[in-house]
Amino acid sequence: MAATTSSSPHSLFLQNPNRHHPLKTSNFSAFTNLKINNFTTRRHMSITCASPAVPIQDRAATQIQNQEGERVFNFAAGPATLPERVLAKAQSELYDWRGCGMSVMEMSHRGKEFKSIIEKAESDLRTLLNIPQEYSVLFLQGGATTQFAAIPLNLCRPDDPVDYLVTGSWGDKAYKEAQKYCNPKVIWSGKPEKYTKIPSFEDLEQNPDAKYLHICANETIHGVEFKNYPTPKNATGLLIADMSSNFCSKPVDVTKFGIIYAGAQKNVGPSGVTIVIVRKDLIGNAQESTPVMLDYKIHDENNSLYNTPPCYCIYMCGLVFEYLLELGGLEEVEKMNKKKAELLYNAIDGSNGFYRCPVEKSVRSLMNVPFTLEKSELEGEFVKEAAKEQMVQLKGHRSVGGMRASIYNAMPLAGVEKLVAFMKDFQAKHA
Amino acid sequence: MAATTSSSPHSLFLQNPNRHHPLKTSNFSAFTNLKINNFTTRRHMSITCASPAVPIQDRAATQIQNQEGERVFNFAAGPATLPERVLAKAQSELYDWRGCGMSVMEMSHRGKEFKSIIEKAESDLRTLLNIPQEYSVLFLQGGATTQFAAIPLNLCRPDDPVDYLVTGSWGDKAYKEAQKYCNPKVIWSGKPEKYTKIPSFEDLEQNPDAKYLHICANETIHGVEFKNYPTPKNATGLLIADMSSNFCSKPVDVTKFGIIYAGAQKNVGPSGVTIVIVRKDLIGNAQESTPVMLDYKIHDENNSLYNTPPCYCIYMCGLVFEYLLELGGLEEVEKMNKKKAELLYNAIDGSNGFYRCPVEKSVRSLMNVPFTLEKSELEGEFVKEAAKEQMVQLKGHRSVGGMRASIYNAMPLAGVEKLVAFMKDFQAKHA
Repeated sequence: MAATTSSSPHSLFLQNPNRHHPLKTSNFSAFTNLKINNFTTRRHMSITCASPAVPIQDRAATQIQNQEGERVFNFAAGPATLPERVLAKAQSELYDWRGCGMSVMEMSHRGKEFKSIIEKAESDLRTLLNIPQEYSVLFLQGGATTQFAAIPLNLCRPDDPVDYLVTGSWGDKAYKEAQKYCNPKVIWSGKPEKYTKIPSFEDLEQNPDAKYLHICANETIHGVEFKNYPTPKNATGLLIADMSSNFCSKPVDVTKFGIIYAGAQKNVGPSGVTIVIVRKDLIGNAQESTPVMLDYKIHDENNSLYNTPPCYCIYMCGLVFEYLLELGGLEEVEKMNKKKAELLYNAIDGSNGFYRCPVEKSVRSLMNVPFTLEKSELEGEFVKEAAKEQMVQLKGHRSVGGMRASIYNAMPLAGVEKLVAFMKDFQAKHA
Repeated sequence: MAATTSSSPHSLFLQNPNRHHPLKTSNFSAFTNLKINNFTTRRHMSITCASPAVPIQDRAATQIQNQEGERVFNFAAGPATLPERVLAKAQSELYDWRGCGMSVMEMSHRGKEFKSIIEKAESDLRTLLNIPQEYSVLFLQGGATTQFAAIPLNLCRPDDPVDYLVTGSWGDKAYKEAQKYCNPKVIWSGKPEKYTKIPSFEDLEQNPDAKYLHICANETIHGVEFKNYPTPKNATGLLIADMSSNFCSKPVDVTKFGIIYAGAQKNVGPSGVTIVIVRKDLIGNAQESTPVMLDYKIHDENNSLYNTPPCYCIYMCGLVFEYLLELGGLEEVEKMNKKKAELLYNAIDGSNGFYRCPVEKSVRSLMNVPFTLEKSELEGEFVKEAAKEQMVQLKGHRSVGGMRASIYNAMPLAGVEKLVAFMKDFQAKHA
């Protein structure tokens, strides 16, 4: 039972890192500097590149791996695929974090070890998104859905009007939850056109008395993404964005927003932590009935340590932030995301109608690509056959049907290439 | 850089598992049946037994380990030490969960893999605590602190009276949060006696119109634990207990309670998931202003999958539940917890006043043992010297001072033995 299969693929990884990740791989010091004698599972690294150009020696390694199951291309909408190097690093130090004698999961959230973790995570996120000091960064629990309530509770009195621009199901859910705590109005909804569009901002009838304008920057289910942002014409000038599914996928000018919030489980970590970037002057006015855990003031005053935070999830986000910085930051990340999305949308648009994406071209998401088959009766087979080829979670959301490929930061270019090749094969078989 | 140091301690672990954990070790099939060629860090297993009777060959292994830091005895109040075997198993499958080609952190919460994880976690917990089918088990976010609001929001109208029996800081916090949502009354408080007692239940003046009676079954900060439970004399007969810090540390008759809730980060997992065991007939009456994420009905109807749950935290809890079952269930766990606590309290009581535990003997916690030094000026040195001996997080809560040793399920007997030996040495030096 000794580690007989480990050394060869392991060394392949070290010799040939560029093969396994589409993003810039020139600067991985923190991730290649693993204590590599601690574990050997990094052998799985040799799997994700399913390109036909795999050298012979890699094929041998792959065959060994196939016995235990190889790493799949996971197109899930969230929780979603994470960077292999981040997982490898997390695995290497799960049992003993950097020689401190315990797992991150065991650390007191008030101890010096965890403080260093959460502080570095915040600092790296601030660097990535260029977050000014006038903004607080909070690491909270409860998902974006909890923020749907927290935002009006923190910013409004019960009678205050607010505006919601609804471009998909998540924006609609945010609007509905806000009805409990203020007086929200949908100033535009894409529902009549099945959430395939974003309106012209000039034509929006914003309420000048609204306390804020709320958008969902990327609709995970419908694949609709804002490419620029409306200017709030309300008295406060506040724009608020749910960025759960495109957070850290591209540079964003934080100063345009009063609040940006995001569940981590798409681009930056596992589920269980929600990041809220909030302008400090907006903190401290929560309604009296606000649960203490939804009051930004409590979390801001306590640096997200009022009660026990989701420590391991924050740690994982920190590893991802570090990784994204080493890739060259969000400009580089966006380039790769554009390349992947272009490849996939071109395959759809170039299929002579065999595949169709319902979303208006100018607002198609770089993250979530919904598509259907002209012959819709083949969709089940498409999903099934793709899964046989180790491409999983391609079924569209149950409310929409069809297929959806989520291609977040951590989806390798090789994954999209393999999907596109599969799509062409599938079309050739069934055209 | 190859795994030169791994094989020896690893095989020691396999040959000699009983040495490393105080609890019954006869039946670890699921945990010894690891894919052990996947990683080699289980070598750390050989470290936690710091007994002077370590054989020569182990000492050699220990010396190798010391170069990177050995596993400490972590007396933190939560997040807290986890079972070594659980950590080892989690590490072995972090990168690829049982050959499915992805990490648990990457799985869709609606996919078959994660469904099997959450269903097994619930099922094992039901077995451990013998939870009847009339109770729902919910895996939620936000810590017990979120439940402080959720409970009155789900069970009360704003004017409803409820009773709180306050035996420590957490019970007090629960009471204060409830003031926002109902009409709570403290029917007894241990504050005047610095939270060192639990009153006689007969003398309690319960409000017959109260919608429930709330207790905190174990006060983490003050080390006060209910050994039996008051009978609610209110109209509904509802007793509600925050069991965050003694959850799954001993058998509990669930049918005595309307709701049991617990943050996981003491006895059953990492921080980030809160378990709520709620009688089904209590679900469905939330106040209109309840945030959707605090409404038990939503989570019950969706099997804790209304939005994305904290998947990895739930997975870790599942591993712990499985482990506790393999130990022989909560009867066995309680035996070991009693043994550890007895050892420590005896050391305190037998110190001729050098060490003191302020808590009344009959209600001393098996989980959290607060103690002070007669010569309080030595407390800083005590904590510092203990840390040098790899016993960390012994400082008392900032609101109380002194020391606190949290000795949850996963604290090995060897850890308490080492602490007691250290206490005797320290006393001899400073008496």
